Amino acid sequence: MDYQKILNTIFLTCSSSKDRGEVASYIPELANIERSKFGIHLIDSGKNNYQAGDAEHKFSIQSISKVLSLAHAIGLVGKTIWKRLNVEPSGDPFNHLSLLEMENGIPRNPLINAGAIVIADILVSNLENPKADFLNYVRKLANDTSIDFNLDVANSEKKSGFRNYAAANLLKSYGNLKNDVETVLDFYFHQCAIEMSCSQLAKTFFLFMNHGTCQQGRTYLNLSQVKRINALMLTCGFYDEAGEFAFEVGLPGKSGVGGGIVALLPNRYCVATWSPGLNIKGNSKLGMKALEKLTTATKQSIF
Amino acid sequence: MDYQKILNTIFLTCSSSKDRGEVASYIPELANIERSKFGIHLIDSGKNNYQAGDAEHKFSIQSISKVLSLAHAIGLVGKTIWKRLNVEPSGDPFNHLSLLEMENGIPRNPLINAGAIVIADILVSNLENPKADFLNYVRKLANDTSIDFNLDVANSEKKSGFRNYAAANLLKSYGNLKNDVETVLDFYFHQCAIEMSCSQLAKTFFLFMNHGTCQQGRTYLNLSQVKRINALMLTCGFYDEAGEFAFEVGLPGKSGVGGGIVALLPNRYCVATWSPGLNIKGNSKLGMKALEKLTTATKQSIF
Amino acid sequence: MDYQKILNTIFLTCSSSKDRGEVASYIPELANIERSKFGIHLIDSGKNNYQAGDAEHKFSIQSISKVLSLAHAIGLVGKTIWKRLNVEPSGDPFNHLSLLEMENGIPRNPLINAGAIVIADILVSNLENPKADFLNYVRKLANDTSIDFNLDVANSEKKSGFRNYAAANLLKSYGNLKNDVETVLDFYFHQCAIEMSCSQLAKTFFLFMNHGTCQQGRTYLNLSQVKRINALMLTCGFYDEAGEFAFEVGLPGKSGVGGGIVALLPNRYCVATWSPGLNIKGNSKLGMKALEKLTTATKQSIF
Amino acid sequence: MDYQKILNTIFLTCSSSKDRGEVASYIPELANIERSKFGIHLIDSGKNNYQAGDAEHKFSIQSISKVLSLAHAIGLVGKTIWKRLNVEPSGDPFNHLSLLEMENGIPRNPLINAGAIVIADILVSNLENPKADFLNYVRKLANDTSIDFNLDVANSEKKSGFRNYAAANLLKSYGNLKNDVETVLDFYFHQCAIEMSCSQLAKTFFLFMNHGTCQQGRTYLNLSQVKRINALMLTCGFYDEAGEFAFEVGLPGKSGVGGGIVALLPNRYCVATWSPGLNIKGNSKLGMKALEKLTTATKQSIF
Repeated sequence: MDYQKILNTIFLTCSSSKDRGEVASYIPELANIERSKFGIHLIDSGKNNYQAGDAEHKFSIQSISKVLSLAHAIGLVGKTIWKRLNVEPSGDPFNHLSLLEMENGIPRNPLINAGAIVIADILVSNLENPKADFLNYVRKLANDTSIDFNLDVANSEKKSGFRNYAAANLLKSYGNLKNDVETVLDFYFHQCAIEMSCSQLAKTFFLFMNHGTCQQGRTYLNLSQVKRINALMLTCGFYDEAGEFAFEVGLPGKSGVGGGIVALLPNRYCVATWSPGLNIKGNSKLGMKALEKLTTATKQSIF
Repeated sequence: MDYQKILNTIFLTCSSSKDRGEVASYIPELANIERSKFGIHLIDSGKNNYQAGDAEHKFSIQSISKVLSLAHAIGLVGKTIWKRLNVEPSGDPFNHLSLLEMENGIPRNPLINAGAIVIADILVSNLENPKADFLNYVRKLANDTSIDFNLDVANSEKKSGFRNYAAANLLKSYGNLKNDVETVLDFYFHQCAIEMSCSQLAKTFFLFMNHGTCQQGRTYLNLSQVKRINALMLTCGFYDEAGEFAFEVGLPGKSGVGGGIVALLPNRYCVATWSPGLNIKGNSKLGMKALEKLTTATKQSIF
Repeated sequence: MDYQKILNTIFLTCSSSKDRGEVASYIPELANIERSKFGIHLIDSGKNNYQAGDAEHKFSIQSISKVLSLAHAIGLVGKTIWKRLNVEPSGDPFNHLSLLEMENGIPRNPLINAGAIVIADILVSNLENPKADFLNYVRKLANDTSIDFNLDVANSEKKSGFRNYAAANLLKSYGNLKNDVETVLDFYFHQCAIEMSCSQLAKTFFLFMNHGTCQQGRTYLNLSQVKRINALMLTCGFYDEAGEFAFEVGLPGKSGVGGGIVALLPNRYCVATWSPGLNIKGNSKLGMKALEKLTTATKQSIF
Repeated sequence: MDYQKILNTIFLTCSSSKDRGEVASYIPELANIERSKFGIHLIDSGKNNYQAGDAEHKFSIQSISKVLSLAHAIGLVGKTIWKRLNVEPSGDPFNHLSLLEMENGIPRNPLINAGAIVIADILVSNLENPKADFLNYVRKLANDTSIDFNLDVANSEKKSGFRNYAAANLLKSYGNLKNDVETVLDFYFHQCAIEMSCSQLAKTFFLFMNHGTCQQGRTYLNLSQVKRINALMLTCGFYDEAGEFAFEVGLPGKSGVGGGIVALLPNRYCVATWSPGLNIKGNSKLGMKALEKLTTATKQSIF
């Protein structure tokens, strides 16, 4: 499979596209990103790397971090996390507080905000220096110590993240938040404010297509744990567009409002794209298109 | 109408009742109240006062304060408050965050928590010293400077009021809270922590049965404003039991989890009851019974 | 109180109004009504009658019939109906099937469609010739044998009333419909298709302002039953605008999509208006305005 | 891969299991099935067949038929069906009417009842003899003319399927049902009442693991259409337990209340199980267990 040729073709099509969606604007740090950016990076099972466009440009990974915090939590405390979280698709993210209220404080899954806040709470309880330790976990997966938080983004989210404060307080009212709201959200806003490039992201997510073993050969998760996380990415990784992505692309993956998407074909490859313009559902418009083209060109998907 | 005789009979029946419901226990300051207490006080249109039982015993007025803050806000800024609040019955209080989310941050009415928090925000914006000024407003209505906040109750609510923090943050996310969450909730928790006796409550609410003019002859509200507030008490004053109260009692009124209820028959009387045991809907069990007996004995209601 | 003078003034203002709302158009029989019609009729406690405009013109009473079927059911089987129905305001009528589903087949109150269908089921179970017997009940209340069903309207509703079929089937699935769907809805569509004039309506509703005794002196309901029905009209009689009506008008009442409204001040009068143009909430636009003017002019309301 | 050995082991474990869940009892025809039954049948990509237990015993396929009607509709009219249906996971099936109401008559996906009823409507519109033609379609896929409807089951569903009548009428009210309710539901109840054995089911679903080409070599669907259907089975095939199944089993599949489950691994095999006892979510308890054991033993899943 000539992945480089495929990426080149995708880059050509996408970089000339005019229909790029809207850049997230709820905090200034995200609004100021150039909409013209587009990058893609693929690492295959043999650890060969292929890229095109702005694949080394760092961006805010935002919700993509939820998969990494979930993996870290599962690695630390195993199955016990499922006492505090469910694993089912959420349907509608726009009323996620209603859903949380209807289900008595048990988030539908760990990839919606309320669920990711519970995961953040678990990490805060189980890590000595939560922010530093989590950053270190990500750096080791990526094999890259240059990865860091963007503190401006984290602070901006803290100032305007009222819905996350609402969710955390609601969780607290149900007894499903052990630490105090400020501490958990401080961790959560930092986690989301990690900056990575497509290249770093694809390498970091290598373990999810490689049975839990990272590119450096360290095993973080067992087969069953990887299966669980991949299943969650497939059914819940794209807000209210998970079904559409499962069909159009057919790979487990996760998107973030920073415009990044990471996806993987078990045993074959892991791929990351970045284009800051979002479609109406909050997923990167060109990123979705690029991954659709990739699975069409390779004729490979999980289905 | 021999109100004293009627109150005596009600007191006899209620003070011997064994079916008293459960005392609110979510904060220790409320949980420690003696369940055996029962008081009732009635002031008629001629300012004659009648009472029985623990009518001079102070208790936490809690949600009853929402009517007073609403009246104060209407007096200060008039109709403009209805841009930020609706006036319809809420149906179900147990999922009030869902309702707030579905209705895009406009609370259904000013007597559910989310609505009362918007009113608190309006008072914080319009009063120089919000807590002191509001307390003074209540003292003047009651003609009694001994009325005060119970600071232990206010602090306890602040520590455990996660649902109110969730509501305030959700309001903030919709732009329907002008001041910061902490400031507004500090005011709100103090407002709810005012302590009054049945005697003080009945006198304070005198203006709502007297076309907006208090017992001292000062006019605070016009006819239309009083009608609005009375209509809201009738349709929304008893959580999920407003319809039941409208039928069983047939008077505009408001209850609080401290066990107080105040109700009024326009042009005739204003009455307050207190018994700390609550029914399953959160309304004082003996208070409901006492008011039902009052309207049965007097054969008077608004219907 | 010079009611005739007040009605004349109201008629003058309303008949020249240009802002008349939209006529209901979901069935042709309703869509073809002239929007310029306006009538009002008032009967006072002394059985004096006053009217203005098209007060003798018959129209489809539609949902106003729900109060009459409720009264008939209460008269026949008493309190037992509350095992199958609740008495609380519904909040939002636009998703009434959701509400019914969430509350396991127990309609929120007898004045929303699902509740009125349960009442229809009760009447079908308890009347020998349900349609004829109910019509006879209405005729006796009105003291007028000319009142009848409009069969075209009933048949039209039967052909297009899919939401009512959905509600009836959902009730059936919860075991809260004893007779078969077709039989109950046939009765229900006929009940709603009764035609009456303002004059007939005001006289028919006389018993609700007269402690349960009709204009002919026959007692149909006891005090407690009348209080229940009046409380329900006040809290639930105007779809999603009950709170607004309670404030603007301040009387128990009921509206229908045919453009009729009936309202009453206990011990004083009963009034009916008709103007086929509806506001966005489904209530007669000029009817609401006329009743607001009436209570402003008389300075009387229940509050 | 020695599939026969694996099936034998699964059969041994499952047939001796005492924890078998509850048999569906809402119609007598389903309630009378022996709970002790257990069958499994696997067909691999080379068309080799393996089976154990009651693999030739016919049972009511119920909701499994929704995948076949969807495939038939897509084959007949292609993408146009997505104007009337969405493709996202539904979250909660227990309030599916609420969901349908909130989303204005567009079912969340074709595998919940409301969605399958829209598919039935499409087939009724596009087939000359809908019931016979659909049965013929299934018989050809199975290469077995003995497959038939169980008319007792179809009639029983017709008598008690009030929720389906409610859904169909609600769809009709939104204009999302072209034919009349009775005709569509008659087709739908027959479709669900088809009886097949595990052996027949596995062979019938062969095309979904074989890029749209059935065991007889006829191509019914293109690659993209098969991907869509498999993605829908994975994200929506197991009521409120899709996420759990995606993790525990990791294959696209569909269950029915008759106790059947069919699942497939693209390019490898298609498998069907039957055990009439259901878990609390409505999926066959032993069937879930058997498929979990199969993917554990084969170490193969899509993740």
